[in-house]
Amino acid sequence: MRRTNIPEAAIRRLPIYLRVVSELAAADVPIISSAELAERTGLSPEQIRKDLAYFGAFGTRGVGYDTSLLSRRIARILGLHRGVRAALVGVGHLGHALARYSISQHKDIQITALFDTDPEKIGTDVMGVRIQPVSQLVETCRQQGVKIGILTVPASAAQSTAELMKQGGIEAILNFAPAKLKLDGVFIQNIDLTIELQSLAYYTSASEEDPGEGE
Amino acid sequence: MRRTNIPEAAIRRLPIYLRVVSELAAADVPIISSAELAERTGLSPEQIRKDLAYFGAFGTRGVGYDTSLLSRRIARILGLHRGVRAALVGVGHLGHALARYSISQHKDIQITALFDTDPEKIGTDVMGVRIQPVSQLVETCRQQGVKIGILTVPASAAQSTAELMKQGGIEAILNFAPAKLKLDGVFIQNIDLTIELQSLAYYTSASEEDPGEGE
Repeated sequence: MRRTNIPEAAIRRLPIYLRVVSELAAADVPIISSAELAERTGLSPEQIRKDLAYFGAFGTRGVGYDTSLLSRRIARILGLHRGVRAALVGVGHLGHALARYSISQHKDIQITALFDTDPEKIGTDVMGVRIQPVSQLVETCRQQGVKIGILTVPASAAQSTAELMKQGGIEAILNFAPAKLKLDGVFIQNIDLTIELQSLAYYTSASEEDPGEGE
Repeated sequence: MRRTNIPEAAIRRLPIYLRVVSELAAADVPIISSAELAERTGLSPEQIRKDLAYFGAFGTRGVGYDTSLLSRRIARILGLHRGVRAALVGVGHLGHALARYSISQHKDIQITALFDTDPEKIGTDVMGVRIQPVSQLVETCRQQGVKIGILTVPASAAQSTAELMKQGGIEAILNFAPAKLKLDGVFIQNIDLTIELQSLAYYTSASEEDPGEGE
């Protein structure tokens, strides 16, 4: 259970490293220095060395990291080497856009199931993935071995839908609904657009906390 | 310049407090204890007291927080009391969904301008906000006093579009493009769906870091 000792912030940086080193590996660049990795990610070389040390030392001092090796290692750490299945519930405007984006972009995380309650949507598909009734969620997710849930339902339906996801064997949820989920044993990451935008306002001259930059 | 001493994590929790206390204030619940605020937000009472103390002590020991006062105070801290204008660039599937969502939900942060490069989209509108050519971005944002930019363009166009946003007077950017922006003097918050999903995979049994939960 090494994972419990690794800070969430470090886990969230692994995909950033993965993107850089896998692009380099694909372009036949065999080695990257931590200075170059820092330049390309905007993180400090110290941060990078510290993050990667959580998973064992990969770099060779004075040489750098083997891009192909590091790419494969990070993919394994994240569990992406086997492919991870995801289901999205709530195919409204945001859900539809996220489904299209995810289905088209991700090879290592595959959206294999979509769910909605709207009879007009059920039976239609998004880029080849059929929209099923929410009543099928538990069974379909179990059958397909879905591990990740993407929740884009209204706030009022978020908790009950998340509980169904758990019943279906989902272990981690990306929650876009503006609702606080209470669910033991499932990792939950919230993305709340209202919170993102309101936080951003603080860093503008609209905030009263910095009169020096006022309009 | 008090803002420089306040952790970004604390700023990101302010909208969560704001949501709870403004709902209570609207429902004529005048007071909330820090224990109740903790229950409703999922944060600890200690965290809440610490966060709010950054902006002056609002609570009365043994009584709680005045919901109406706290709601107004947080709105002022974030700069939401005057309303903040935002522009979204890149009205693809994700941009369109985010524009619809934001225009319909936010009263304190208003999307007043949309931009795209596609001639078929220019001149059409999303919920009453017209899509303009990106060539108009700088002028329109300056005229309207837009402070926040939402970036939903492809990675290849992200840096150049962000630079136009800065020229237009935008001070904070919510970046959905999978690209690292380099832009001094502008606060940038990245939301990268690939990174979110790949990080989530770590917390599932697909990850090799926890063989005990393996399939």
